[in-house]
Order: sequence, then structure tokens, then C-alpha cells
Amino acid sequence: MRHNFGAGPCILPQEVFKQASQAVLDFKDGLSILEISHRTPEFEAVVDETVKLVKELMNVPSGYSVVLLQGGASLQFSMVPMNLLPQGGTAAYLETGVWANKAIKEVKNFGTANIVASSKADNYTFIPKGYSIPEDSAYFHCTSNNTIYGTEMFELPETNVPVVCDMSSDIMSHVVDVSKYDLIYAGAQKNIGPAGLTIAIVKDEVLGKSGRGIPSMLDYKVHIDGGSMYNTPPVFSIYVAMLNLRWLKSKGGVAEIEKENIAKANALYKEIDRNPLFKGTCAVEDRSRMNICFVMENPELEKPFLKFAEENGIEGIKGHRSVGGFRASMYNALPITSVHALIDLMQTFEENHK
Amino acid sequence: MRHNFGAGPCILPQEVFKQASQAVLDFKDGLSILEISHRTPEFEAVVDETVKLVKELMNVPSGYSVVLLQGGASLQFSMVPMNLLPQGGTAAYLETGVWANKAIKEVKNFGTANIVASSKADNYTFIPKGYSIPEDSAYFHCTSNNTIYGTEMFELPETNVPVVCDMSSDIMSHVVDVSKYDLIYAGAQKNIGPAGLTIAIVKDEVLGKSGRGIPSMLDYKVHIDGGSMYNTPPVFSIYVAMLNLRWLKSKGGVAEIEKENIAKANALYKEIDRNPLFKGTCAVEDRSRMNICFVMENPELEKPFLKFAEENGIEGIKGHRSVGGFRASMYNALPITSVHALIDLMQTFEENHK
Repeated sequence: MRHNFGAGPCILPQEVFKQASQAVLDFKDGLSILEISHRTPEFEAVVDETVKLVKELMNVPSGYSVVLLQGGASLQFSMVPMNLLPQGGTAAYLETGVWANKAIKEVKNFGTANIVASSKADNYTFIPKGYSIPEDSAYFHCTSNNTIYGTEMFELPETNVPVVCDMSSDIMSHVVDVSKYDLIYAGAQKNIGPAGLTIAIVKDEVLGKSGRGIPSMLDYKVHIDGGSMYNTPPVFSIYVAMLNLRWLKSKGGVAEIEKENIAKANALYKEIDRNPLFKGTCAVEDRSRMNICFVMENPELEKPFLKFAEENGIEGIKGHRSVGGFRASMYNALPITSVHALIDLMQTFEENHK
Repeated sequence: MRHNFGAGPCILPQEVFKQASQAVLDFKDGLSILEISHRTPEFEAVVDETVKLVKELMNVPSGYSVVLLQGGASLQFSMVPMNLLPQGGTAAYLETGVWANKAIKEVKNFGTANIVASSKADNYTFIPKGYSIPEDSAYFHCTSNNTIYGTEMFELPETNVPVVCDMSSDIMSHVVDVSKYDLIYAGAQKNIGPAGLTIAIVKDEVLGKSGRGIPSMLDYKVHIDGGSMYNTPPVFSIYVAMLNLRWLKSKGGVAEIEKENIAKANALYKEIDRNPLFKGTCAVEDRSRMNICFVMENPELEKPFLKFAEENGIEGIKGHRSVGGFRASMYNALPITSVHALIDLMQTFEENHK
């Protein structure tokens, strides 16, 4: 039995793999999902259902559009200022990790990023709070979950400026009030589907105000008007995302999966805090439910523990090189039995090292 | 038996579907190709082999880089001027169809597109020849195959300026001398693999000269330096492309598939020219081997023929709405038996309408 704690691309439900595998052989009338035109009614239905499921699962209010894109969050780092930042304007950015920092760096081609708060000096081990966002910011940008450091933002700051959020690694893991955001984007490869797809949820009224000429493929409006079919979309990634969102709906939706995610995270953090061999790496109140980072009190035991884990079917828990130690990523599709398997292993390791 | 003549995304070899389907269930140690990290050695090997196969199959000379991207040719329409056109500069474009025209339109954000020749007035039924390219053009851009109209460019004009080619729909269908080009790009979803992947072959020395700030994700150099892993790549599309390129290599490579493509195209054009019910739509010397467009002498027979074809397992031959009639797309993976099935049907239809 394998337990996939990888940080992404990551585990998806086993039934999704089965359905996807079948569609590669026969999607309709003996034709593979890999050889059908994106303009067939059958695939247009897939796009429609995917968009509908995103709206339904996230309770997206009217006045927002959902678009299916390519290029990951990394392309969004440029698309956001390109679409929302007037020439020479300033946007407020919260610096909570490497990905936030990459978003900040891309602003330079379009205007200025004003870093309103940062936890960089503490290796991003907490989410800054109590900062203020200048009223004349074109928008405020934040990263809701920081995969490398294991921090997560559960509350937005009070602000009147449009809020943009990179929700790549915790989208659909807990209920969010979409009406508080003006633009949400996410690479699919955590809770939505396989790599190769990006989702954006855009409040229509924030678009068309930058006064800048925008290349068609980088213009949210073009993709909205084209119904996510302005050009050939990533057909298979969208199809698998649809299967996965169907699975999430069948589980009871985001509110239900949130309960599971809380139970999974609580169980592992409890063990980290209890077990004298291990300790967490970031501020308790900012602990991520998606990426749980921890180290060992005795660093010399880290290699043996990693080996022990891998020998017992625990995959992908090696921490990012900038933090070290361990990172257990526990996205929606990771069953709680996998979390228990890891906890059992930590306890056995403790017994073996008494 | 189905015969998939769709224009794209299109047919791939059946053995590729089988291998891809299996990898969705188990790529390594029971883990799906959809749940593995792109940073695993196993997937890094997939990227390396894909790039190596492109270089080998196309005989890419040293001094060129092959990169795996996202966004399709449509994003290349902007990336090309962004990377190669100095601020306010002019590039020469050959207008041979809707896709060429879309490329032309994207130049406006960066400089000027000088249309050196066009067949627009004749609904793009031929490839212009005998035009001249101003020496001070930043580059010359052409589209080697025009899917909608069924024309293909088999010769490049003589020029000293860098040559950029959108080879999306005929890449690897016939031997090209890569050394005559400075930048070749192609959406994967014809002869390379499934939708969601784009390939670019770039002569390294043409980069870094535009003097413009380029967003990281749109900078060829960034992707070259990142080994096509600057950010999370479209894992599954790359994997299937690798399988498909392996298949092409096992068939004897591009030179061998070119012979098959010539045989397939010759057979169908011969029937179009012989059968009194049908006629070709474009200049004989510019006829595409990939997309074969034809109409009926009596337009009233088109609906009945389409119905007859569909009833007999011929998929996807309805012509593009801007041309009408029929379009038989015959990419690398389409077996010659499918072409014979279509020819048989045309002959039966002729018999039935004597």
C-alpha cells in the first residue's frame, strides 16, 4: 500500500484514475479523449460541466466568470498586473514565501509592487498580520497557502481595494467566501486535477481598466468571451478535473471535505506536538492543513526516519530544501487512513529510538 | 471500425493510447502518471527523452534549444514578437490563412507587422510566392501548413533575416532543414501528442536582443535555462508526446513517415481529381499533405455524402465553415487503410449517383 504525501502534482482519487484511464482508450464511440476535437459537443459538455462544478462547489456569486487557462500560477503572476495594474500603478503584495515572491518579481514589467508585509526574515514561518494596505493600491495580492513552509492564511485583511489571491494549493480544501475576492487563480495540480490546467475566477467588473494593450492569450476577457475555448484547451487535464470535481461533489462538496481536512491535519499536528522526536516549524495559528512541515529534535535521525517511512510506503514527505525536515502534503484526495499510517510510523519510530 | 480524419486534436497511434491508459493507472510503483511530482527522477527522464527525441527526429543542429511550453501556437503569436522584435521594430509576415492572420494581429502590442504577401483575396487557396522581404525586418514569420484551407509551404523564400515558422500542423510530417530556421514552434496536438503542450525549437543566438522586459513565463531563455521545468510542466501531455515520438522513431523516423504521408495524400488527391463528383479547392502545387480540402461539383450532394461517410465510420471530414465542403486531415498516425476506406466510399457514392 502506497501513501502519496507528495506536494504536487499530487494524489487524486483512485476512481478518477480509473475513469481517466478508460477515457484514454474510449471516450466516445471508441475514440480516445486524446484524439477528439475540442469542438465536439461531447467535449464542450465537459468544459461546461467543469465550469459549472467550480461555480457550484465554490458557491461563486453572479458577476464572476470562471475560466480554464494554461501556464500555471507562474503565468498568472504576469497576467494579474497585465490585466489589473494601470501603467506605472502600484499594487500591494503580501510576501509569505517563494511563490509570493515570484509573483512580486513579475510586477516590475508593468508597475510597482509595494510589499505591505513580509515574513521573509523568519524564513516565512508565519503569516504577517496587522499591516495596512494603502487605499490607492490597484489591488492587494496574497498567497493563501504556502506549500514550502506549511503556512496558510485563514483570514483576509480588511481592505477596500480589489483582492487577488493565488489559491493554487488550498483551493476547494475549505469554504471561502468568493465575494470577498476580485480574482482567484489556481494551478490545478493540487485539489482540482492534473498539471496543465489553471483556473481563474474573475469578478467581471475589475477587468478592462488597465488601459494597456494585452496580448489576446493573456487577456482574461478574451478567454471569458471564448468560453475557455479561445484556442485549443488542455483537453485531457480539463476532463480529469471534471472527474475530480464530480468526486468532490459526491463526497458532499467543500464543506464536507473541509471537515475531513481538519480531522486529518489535527491528527498529524497532535502527533507532531506529542511525539518528543518531532516538532513543527511554523506558528501554530498559521499552520497549513494542506502541507504539514516538521523537523526532528535530533537532525541526525531525519535520514533514518525518511528511509523508514519510504520502506513502509510513505511517499513524498521529504521537506523542501529551503526548510529541510519533512513535509506531509495532505490534499483533498489523501485518505485519513494514509495519515494514520504516517502517525503509526512516527510512533513506531519513537518506540525504536527510546 | 472508426477512421479519425479530425483536424485536431487528432488521431494518435493506438499503441500510444494503450500505453498512456496504463500509465494513468500505474506509471511507477503503483503511482499514476497524474499524481507524481514533476521533480521525480522518473519524470525528469521523460522530459529529457522527449527533448532528445525531438532533436533526433528533426535532426536539430547544435546551437538550438528545444523547449516544452504551454499555451499553444496562440501564445507563441505574442511570445515571438515579445522575444524577437525590438521596441517599435518591424517584422515581415506572410499571410496564408486565419492562423497567420492571428499571429499578425498580436504584433501590434510590440511593433509593426509588415504583410509581405497575402492570398486573402482568394480565400487563402494558394501560398504566395515571389515576394521580397525587406532586409531590415526583425524576422520573417510564416505558417507552414494551413489546416483550414489545405495549403502547405514546401519551400522557404530566400532571405537573410531570421525565419520564424508556425509548424503546428505539419511538424514531423516531412523532413525539414532546421538550420534554415531561427525559431520553429508548434502546438503538439497534431503530430506530436495531445493538446496542452507546445514545442519550440530556438536558435540560441536570436534571443536576448529585443531590449524589452519579458515576463518570465514568456521568455524562451527562462524555459531553456530551466530545462523546460521553470514551473510545473503539463506532465501527462509531455509523457504522451514522448510515447508518440518513440512510435515515430520506431516507424523509421520523419523520412519514413514522409513517404507514407506522400502515398496517403497522392492516393486521395488522385481520387478527388478522378472522381467527377469531387474537386479540390486549392492550387495543385500548394496542396497540403496533412489537410486535404475538397468540395462537390454539385453542392446539394454534400450533405448526403457527409451522412454516408459518417454512417461508414469516417469521422471528422466536415470542412471548416469558412471553406465548406470537406477536409480530410491525414496526420502521421492515420493509417493508409483509413485513406483507402474514404476512397472506397467516394467511389461507392459515385456508383450510387450515376
